[in-house]
Amino acid sequence: MAVSVSNRKKVAELAGVSEATVSRVLNGIGPMKETTRQRVLAAAKQLNYELNAIASSFARGRSGNLGVVLPHVPKVHLFSTYYFSEILSGIGEEVRSKGYGLLLLFRDPNEVFDYASLFRTQRIDACIVLGASAIASEREGIARMAGQRLPFCVMDQRFDGLDVSAVATDHEQGSYEAVKHLIAQGCRRIGFLNGAPHYSNSVDRMSGYLRALREAGIEVDESIIYRGNYSRKSGTQAAEAVHADLGKLDALFVANDRMAIGLMQGLRELGLSFPEHLPIVGYDDSDVASMTEPPLTTVKVPFYEMGRLAAERLLDRLSDPDNESFAFNEILQTELIVRKSCGTHRSGESR
Amino acid sequence: MAVSVSNRKKVAELAGVSEATVSRVLNGIGPMKETTRQRVLAAAKQLNYELNAIASSFARGRSGNLGVVLPHVPKVHLFSTYYFSEILSGIGEEVRSKGYGLLLLFRDPNEVFDYASLFRTQRIDACIVLGASAIASEREGIARMAGQRLPFCVMDQRFDGLDVSAVATDHEQGSYEAVKHLIAQGCRRIGFLNGAPHYSNSVDRMSGYLRALREAGIEVDESIIYRGNYSRKSGTQAAEAVHADLGKLDALFVANDRMAIGLMQGLRELGLSFPEHLPIVGYDDSDVASMTEPPLTTVKVPFYEMGRLAAERLLDRLSDPDNESFAFNEILQTELIVRKSCGTHRSGESR
Repeated sequence: MAVSVSNRKKVAELAGVSEATVSRVLNGIGPMKETTRQRVLAAAKQLNYELNAIASSFARGRSGNLGVVLPHVPKVHLFSTYYFSEILSGIGEEVRSKGYGLLLLFRDPNEVFDYASLFRTQRIDACIVLGASAIASEREGIARMAGQRLPFCVMDQRFDGLDVSAVATDHEQGSYEAVKHLIAQGCRRIGFLNGAPHYSNSVDRMSGYLRALREAGIEVDESIIYRGNYSRKSGTQAAEAVHADLGKLDALFVANDRMAIGLMQGLRELGLSFPEHLPIVGYDDSDVASMTEPPLTTVKVPFYEMGRLAAERLLDRLSDPDNESFAFNEILQTELIVRKSCGTHRSGESR
Repeated sequence: MAVSVSNRKKVAELAGVSEATVSRVLNGIGPMKETTRQRVLAAAKQLNYELNAIASSFARGRSGNLGVVLPHVPKVHLFSTYYFSEILSGIGEEVRSKGYGLLLLFRDPNEVFDYASLFRTQRIDACIVLGASAIASEREGIARMAGQRLPFCVMDQRFDGLDVSAVATDHEQGSYEAVKHLIAQGCRRIGFLNGAPHYSNSVDRMSGYLRALREAGIEVDESIIYRGNYSRKSGTQAAEAVHADLGKLDALFVANDRMAIGLMQGLRELGLSFPEHLPIVGYDDSDVASMTEPPLTTVKVPFYEMGRLAAERLLDRLSDPDNESFAFNEILQTELIVRKSCGTHRSGESR
């Protein structure tokens, strides 16, 4: 059996013997314990098999990895946000059950990311884009990948005008139901702390909020619509403005739980109690939502299932490469979870 | 320029033209728009460059990926636990800044995982083992990898008797300081809800707890040492036993925040308030620790830094492959964070 120098080293490592021993066994030189000989031959056989497996995977152009490309946000511990951690848990479970690896890569959202090269260099077989927004550089990177008909999908973000597979949740309906619940409790002057508008799911939340008000014949008051960026800190920063507006607020709808929790902490420091002074509804049903005092009324988003489903659809496509019409657009539904933070509004109550 | 059939397809995809067009351009057949010709030539050149890059990476045996191997735990959303999410955030930041990918792979803790094959098949260049325990199958997998001198480290777990690089935190000292703080407040009958003993960091927490008691001349009462498994649910499940023992408890030390929060929820349902009825100290300083009411006194563990440091040490090794003596054993320190959950114990107070 012919082995190269570098392979000889690998066989030696695998068999737990010296390279010289490998040479002697493979060349049949000198005396050798039979157990050692067998170990070296088994290692050489296994290694040869695996080298063939690499070569064949190289020829087939398969890496065995599903790529997940995340935005790099300085100072943010991305995996520690409920949004990303749950989606990744769902992706991870599906990838594991199918014997794939999950290759995480980071992109600078302000640069056009070269997704296609990840496919050409055979680092990934399919790709999920997480946390994308509508800014031009992000859109351009995704448009280029779409132009090459590569197997990928985006998560929870619409790209109008691009033919892109996606898994998303109906945040318009989720927001509509949250605000409708507050209206049903007798609230009319309902404020809204939203996230940044370059995420389509912020835009959708706004649409749902406006639909619920419109349907109830409530005029929109722009002065009680606030802007955060989905971080807890941005919630805390909104506390002062919300506090100044208390006289014109029956309740507040907040676009995610992290901002709701930050806001409540900020308002608590200004002397407020919940839900007595201000009924609040959050969004996500993150794990902290049930741990706060009072527990948060919130909109449950099936993040885990979104991740699992996206991975499933892409890996199914890989096992059926002739299927050209694999484009998908899955929209999952939310569920309103009523806990104590939204209280039960009593109209005319003094604050 | 000679291109194979499969490469012709790739050039066509990259240039956004048909394969027939690629053939015509590369073979100089028939009329062709100059812009199309240029696009195909550029694509062929780029692809050739990248194929060479793959071939050369293949020859060098480098994947450009740092592997992270996680235990598969059915039904647990692993990335959503503070422990894993923070360590991964730290690893991810370091990997990103060095231009590597992060390949996540899952192991069944009850089987001997074949780490070495990940190296031999060139899927990873180095490896971090997360969430390992002292059970025989886990130890055997790590022992085999160590025997082949592969570049890897384990995180927050000791393997006595194995020569293994590690990044860990001094949980003996962290637990000692937490219990000492309760003693300084006048507590003497201090219970302990610990995690499973096959994690060395549970064993270390126990050592720190015992040292603090011993130093204060307090006799150990085995009947107020409880066992959970670091899940919130196991904390809630411990509530009944702790409630039955209230008469002999001045305070409780809990081995992580998740269990502390589950326990407090369980005890709250039995009518208890915190810290009035039972001062509690958690462990980890997870992000929920500051969001609960009352906020948790806890022991801050530098998970993010642990992850970052492990990735840094391994990637440094890769850039200096001749450095054979790269073994490391980094021990980081904890910090006691005093919030309201541990109250201020008043001796002899009736409950």
